[in-house]
Amino acid sequence: MPSTSLTFADASEHRRWLEGQAELPAGFRVGTARLAFTPIEAPKPSRMTMTVIALERPTPDFGALFTRNAFPGAPVILGRRRLAEPTIGAIVVNNKISNVCAPDGIVAAERVCEATAQALGFTAAQVLPSSTGVIGWRLPVEAMLEAVPRATAALSSHSVLPAAQGIMTTDLYPKIRRARVGAGSVVGIAKGAGMIEPNMATMLVYLLTDLAVPREGLRAALRRSVGRSFTLISIDSDTSTSDTVVALSSGVHRCDPNAFEAALTTVCQDLAEDVVRNGEGVHHLLRVAVRGCPNDVVARGLGKAVVNSPLVKAAMAGNDPNVGRIVMAIGKHMGAQHPGVDLSGLRLTLGGHTIFDAGAFRLEAGVEAALVAHLRAAELYASAAPEGTVFKPPVSFPPHERAVELQMDLGAGSAEATVLGADLTHEYISENADYRS
Amino acid sequence: MPSTSLTFADASEHRRWLEGQAELPAGFRVGTARLAFTPIEAPKPSRMTMTVIALERPTPDFGALFTRNAFPGAPVILGRRRLAEPTIGAIVVNNKISNVCAPDGIVAAERVCEATAQALGFTAAQVLPSSTGVIGWRLPVEAMLEAVPRATAALSSHSVLPAAQGIMTTDLYPKIRRARVGAGSVVGIAKGAGMIEPNMATMLVYLLTDLAVPREGLRAALRRSVGRSFTLISIDSDTSTSDTVVALSSGVHRCDPNAFEAALTTVCQDLAEDVVRNGEGVHHLLRVAVRGCPNDVVARGLGKAVVNSPLVKAAMAGNDPNVGRIVMAIGKHMGAQHPGVDLSGLRLTLGGHTIFDAGAFRLEAGVEAALVAHLRAAELYASAAPEGTVFKPPVSFPPHERAVELQMDLGAGSAEATVLGADLTHEYISENADYRS
Repeated sequence: MPSTSLTFADASEHRRWLEGQAELPAGFRVGTARLAFTPIEAPKPSRMTMTVIALERPTPDFGALFTRNAFPGAPVILGRRRLAEPTIGAIVVNNKISNVCAPDGIVAAERVCEATAQALGFTAAQVLPSSTGVIGWRLPVEAMLEAVPRATAALSSHSVLPAAQGIMTTDLYPKIRRARVGAGSVVGIAKGAGMIEPNMATMLVYLLTDLAVPREGLRAALRRSVGRSFTLISIDSDTSTSDTVVALSSGVHRCDPNAFEAALTTVCQDLAEDVVRNGEGVHHLLRVAVRGCPNDVVARGLGKAVVNSPLVKAAMAGNDPNVGRIVMAIGKHMGAQHPGVDLSGLRLTLGGHTIFDAGAFRLEAGVEAALVAHLRAAELYASAAPEGTVFKPPVSFPPHERAVELQMDLGAGSAEATVLGADLTHEYISENADYRS
Repeated sequence: MPSTSLTFADASEHRRWLEGQAELPAGFRVGTARLAFTPIEAPKPSRMTMTVIALERPTPDFGALFTRNAFPGAPVILGRRRLAEPTIGAIVVNNKISNVCAPDGIVAAERVCEATAQALGFTAAQVLPSSTGVIGWRLPVEAMLEAVPRATAALSSHSVLPAAQGIMTTDLYPKIRRARVGAGSVVGIAKGAGMIEPNMATMLVYLLTDLAVPREGLRAALRRSVGRSFTLISIDSDTSTSDTVVALSSGVHRCDPNAFEAALTTVCQDLAEDVVRNGEGVHHLLRVAVRGCPNDVVARGLGKAVVNSPLVKAAMAGNDPNVGRIVMAIGKHMGAQHPGVDLSGLRLTLGGHTIFDAGAFRLEAGVEAALVAHLRAAELYASAAPEGTVFKPPVSFPPHERAVELQMDLGAGSAEATVLGADLTHEYISENADYRS
């Protein structure tokens, strides 16, 4: 379950709430710069934002997890090398082009790191690069080198909001979450919003803390927190080549390691939910609470199978409680992956209503109406009649934090997992059928 | 590659071609009847078609393959039992409700078989039931029992077309394919059009032949033919709870078993391609020819990973050659399933153009334009501006048999597979966000 249950009437109310979350932990500064460029591969002018997240002093206490996609981007390849460095002082991020399998992509990323390091008085190995956007295209390196000093000149310790905005691509709004521990805090920002089924790490997420946590403890806590958050979400079942989550500690305030990990997990879980709720074209967040499974693999796999079924997702988009498709998705997964497990004890509730028990559906017209009401209450917005064939979300803020609540008890053990997913809508198609044009 | 390359100017030209394919093999008759009913679960009047496919004499030479979904429908459960019967004389099929996990579903299916047997002078165990449609709802058994004698009264040995029409749900047009062997033939019909990633068998497919093939040989040939056709397609990655493919031989004409199997495979492959081309909302068929793999599992899995990626599918819908997403999908699959395989030899061509080689993309503006032209040429139809937010396909026939042609050489072995998939469109969302309303 989410740690908050917020509603927002409009974008400015949401903006005020974000500003309240955005105070940077001690020891950090962020700055951004915009630049214009034209990609070589499909000439059409575009604009990019460079974001720099800098520590006042490089820290040995950092960790990162990266995508398990077998074609990782150049920044991921470099990021893995940086894990062995004694200290990290800054992250430099660009949107629009992800620098994946582009000719000379490693050289391009290193040049951007060098320029950032030079502007900050660090070494290139103390700068971690991140890129997100189109796969396969080359970075506009010269324009980026010109923009780096503008981004570092803009560094400010006031708010993380410019960075949360700077890393956005198709996100409708910035995502910031914070948790306080004593005099310090953990503040995280995330970029979604498509190609999201993180495998090990996720998307771009930067977790900044002034709590003092030594490197090994921080890395272990990060692995566990990510395992309970970003690895349990899926927007569209696709795993990005750029997934990156980084945690940096400026080490200002002493703290209890358990209190730190609890705060880190809360921030990760809240951000993970934000990412799904702001997924491309998402109208409904679907929370699948799975229990009664023989092991974690089954519990996680079942939750993912339901939230990744295109037919379940499309039914949700239409506020259509087509619960047969949920059972289809469970049966598809179990038949293909775990054919031996006894399913006779399966029990499903949707919005608190029992819909399946003892091998058969429990459906009547009255239940149908109640399920439709549950789906409608969880809808973030309805599709409006489009202009031409292009659908655009009519909101740039999250109206509420309600979800479609599915509970699944397999009755075959004690393992459990809660997985978050989303519906599949016209807005997703519009976003992705013509993203680059 | 398909065994034909047809184009159709309109629905009546397609209809004439279907009629030319539709001659029933010797020894078979088909009949249909319509009925009106109101489902208990969501009261709203609806109409159903009952289809009977009958042999003049029950045959011992039959085979069937069924879904591996762990929640199979009652007809699948009964169908598996029928495999042990000495002979089969008829198939009775209904659309609209699939009779999956409905209370007393087995009893309902048996009653329909009994009524069909009685009308034909067979026993209930000589009748194989099939149902397709909404999962979880109960069959309108009384209305079906009343319709059965009307369907058997309509039995005719003239054409399979009424059956090909009768089993349709969201299909835009009937699917019939035939292959001749000497004096005999194999004629197949198929029903798509959503929840299609067959796992072992597929959809509803009925293969009728007057070629004499003994039971065991027929079942072995069926397994191999299905393995080379229906198990290599996916429309939306969802595996139906009702997938069924049945082969029946009336045993009239002697034949060479190899010639029979070749004909059966051709019919299955052509029908499989028809099913994808007429998948829900499909604008583009995507053919992925994979080679150079260490084994069949990798080859098939890679093809499926590409055709099942929502982001690849959405890009195709927009005629957008977003080839980065293809590499993402390959990397997602290999990173998660086969992390040890060397990918440095990967080579991709799209529409004959090399787009990836030696670890990097080969993209320029000129290639981009050629790829767009390839996608446009393979488009079956373009989305028209919708009324409200509901998109409907503007055609009820297949305009051509062109496809988006992706070739993938992993350079890591000699296994290969050709997988068929489709794009993800507004028409798919419209079909599935409001299918039952």
